[in-house]
Amino acid sequence: MRIVVALGGNALTGPDGSATPEAQTDAVRAAAPALASLAAEHELVITHGNGPQVGNLLVKNEIAAAVVPPVPLDWCGAQTQGTIGTLLLDALDDEFAKRGVEKRIAALVTRTVVDLDDAGFRKPTKPIGRYLPLAEAQPLIDHGQTWVDHGARGWRRVVASPEPLDVLDAPAAAALLGAGFVVVAAGGGGVPTVRSAAGDGSLELGGVQAVIDKDLTAAVLAEALGADLLVVATDVDHAMVGFGTPAERPLHEVTVAELQAYSARGEFGAGGMGPKVEAVCRFTERTGRRSAITSLHRIAEAAAGTAGTRVAP
Amino acid sequence: MRIVVALGGNALTGPDGSATPEAQTDAVRAAAPALASLAAEHELVITHGNGPQVGNLLVKNEIAAAVVPPVPLDWCGAQTQGTIGTLLLDALDDEFAKRGVEKRIAALVTRTVVDLDDAGFRKPTKPIGRYLPLAEAQPLIDHGQTWVDHGARGWRRVVASPEPLDVLDAPAAAALLGAGFVVVAAGGGGVPTVRSAAGDGSLELGGVQAVIDKDLTAAVLAEALGADLLVVATDVDHAMVGFGTPAERPLHEVTVAELQAYSARGEFGAGGMGPKVEAVCRFTERTGRRSAITSLHRIAEAAAGTAGTRVAP
Repeated sequence: MRIVVALGGNALTGPDGSATPEAQTDAVRAAAPALASLAAEHELVITHGNGPQVGNLLVKNEIAAAVVPPVPLDWCGAQTQGTIGTLLLDALDDEFAKRGVEKRIAALVTRTVVDLDDAGFRKPTKPIGRYLPLAEAQPLIDHGQTWVDHGARGWRRVVASPEPLDVLDAPAAAALLGAGFVVVAAGGGGVPTVRSAAGDGSLELGGVQAVIDKDLTAAVLAEALGADLLVVATDVDHAMVGFGTPAERPLHEVTVAELQAYSARGEFGAGGMGPKVEAVCRFTERTGRRSAITSLHRIAEAAAGTAGTRVAP
Repeated sequence: MRIVVALGGNALTGPDGSATPEAQTDAVRAAAPALASLAAEHELVITHGNGPQVGNLLVKNEIAAAVVPPVPLDWCGAQTQGTIGTLLLDALDDEFAKRGVEKRIAALVTRTVVDLDDAGFRKPTKPIGRYLPLAEAQPLIDHGQTWVDHGARGWRRVVASPEPLDVLDAPAAAALLGAGFVVVAAGGGGVPTVRSAAGDGSLELGGVQAVIDKDLTAAVLAEALGADLLVVATDVDHAMVGFGTPAERPLHEVTVAELQAYSARGEFGAGGMGPKVEAVCRFTERTGRRSAITSLHRIAEAAAGTAGTRVAP
């Protein structure tokens, strides 16, 4: 099978959410065995989040702005593809060597096309970075950024989180898969990219300041690659309904229609499980192929159909 | 032909060396036509420097260290592969579209193996980042970094610049070339990587704080890929002998032995042209294939053998 796995924060940061270099390295090394097991049996594409990492880069930009020219948000995303990509390359190469598995891994810098007419750009809503007192936020607001007042906690930047439309570098990922590589692609949802008119009237590609939901991009990427299965790997074994109530129960086998009905009545919330459910529904609805939501160490079982929330058309 | 082009700073920063996002974007866009012309006729691998970009990231790390955990130098290199890779992807994709050339480009996160026993690690000599007063350098020295006193200018960090031994991700570059892609690889000389003993006695890959000369890595990469030609693209049309004297003259056709003799008598200096000459000599000596040093806008002519300093075995 060709499988796309979307790694969440728990595969990339410490148990406490820490994103120090050591915590990131340890987390990726801990994730490697589960990924290597899957790669030994299947064609594997790994995509990953980057929220805490981008948050750190934004704060560095802000603090050092008087000395070093800050880079835009899309550049921060590209930077995390380099660092997280390197960690995954090292960890998987080592894991394959340890097991005597003849596999190689490659990591692609990956861009995702979004639409400048996306509603997200008119009304940014995705919070990012740290809370600051208004006095410190004001120069950034004057610089064109949108910040929101959170009362006693301070002000926090919000950015657009537009719909991912097209993973520009999916053909490169397909070529590498075809040559037998495990492929890391579309990290952080991909570098947000738009086509806009250049001076000479031609369309020009360029980054745009936004964040893209990595699970929604994973669905687009999995479709583009003709994947047989999309697995959203998170920190729980199943999506749950009735969460926190006496009727709480895990979802095992569900159809897209059932998941959508649960989602419509607010079972999953907007923050955590919501976008994951939306991603698997989109992939399975569009392609007629299976998807799953499960914990990182259950991804091989989810692929075998014996664990996790498994989604059928 | 299969050609590896190593891009120097003038393709990546403003005319004044500025590394703002705008200056970098403009420089890469200005470099794109020459690269696209070459790619239309040949298999092309692009590698690039990252000195000013890494310098900026180091300074951000230092300034923000009290708030955000600093990342090591090898991570800064990986970060620049993401940002410069994205710029090259956008600029070349646009250039191909404009010309109606059916080519695609892909950018790989790339690691280069170095040896922890390299003399560079015992006595670091490569200056990097900004000058600081001792009071500000001291905490970093206490943290294990090596800094050198430059008198009135202040103190500056020095790091190892070890020999590149192996480009770990060259097989992925070969697979992409084989599938018809232009490939960006080994940016900044590659992420410096060592194999060291892990807790269980197995060898483990990991980053190491160093910078690798991008032209020397280009020679290793070109050899690994079986390239027919290595072109070191810089800001002058030729390597010169007798530079700054009445006997000054450009080198057109030279053999490795001739170049090595010029180099031995100090014609090229250690800073600018020296490593470029060393890189082309190594590639051509090891492989028996041609190499060239020339300016960015002459790379197609250098490939045709009509411009630049052309090096034969």
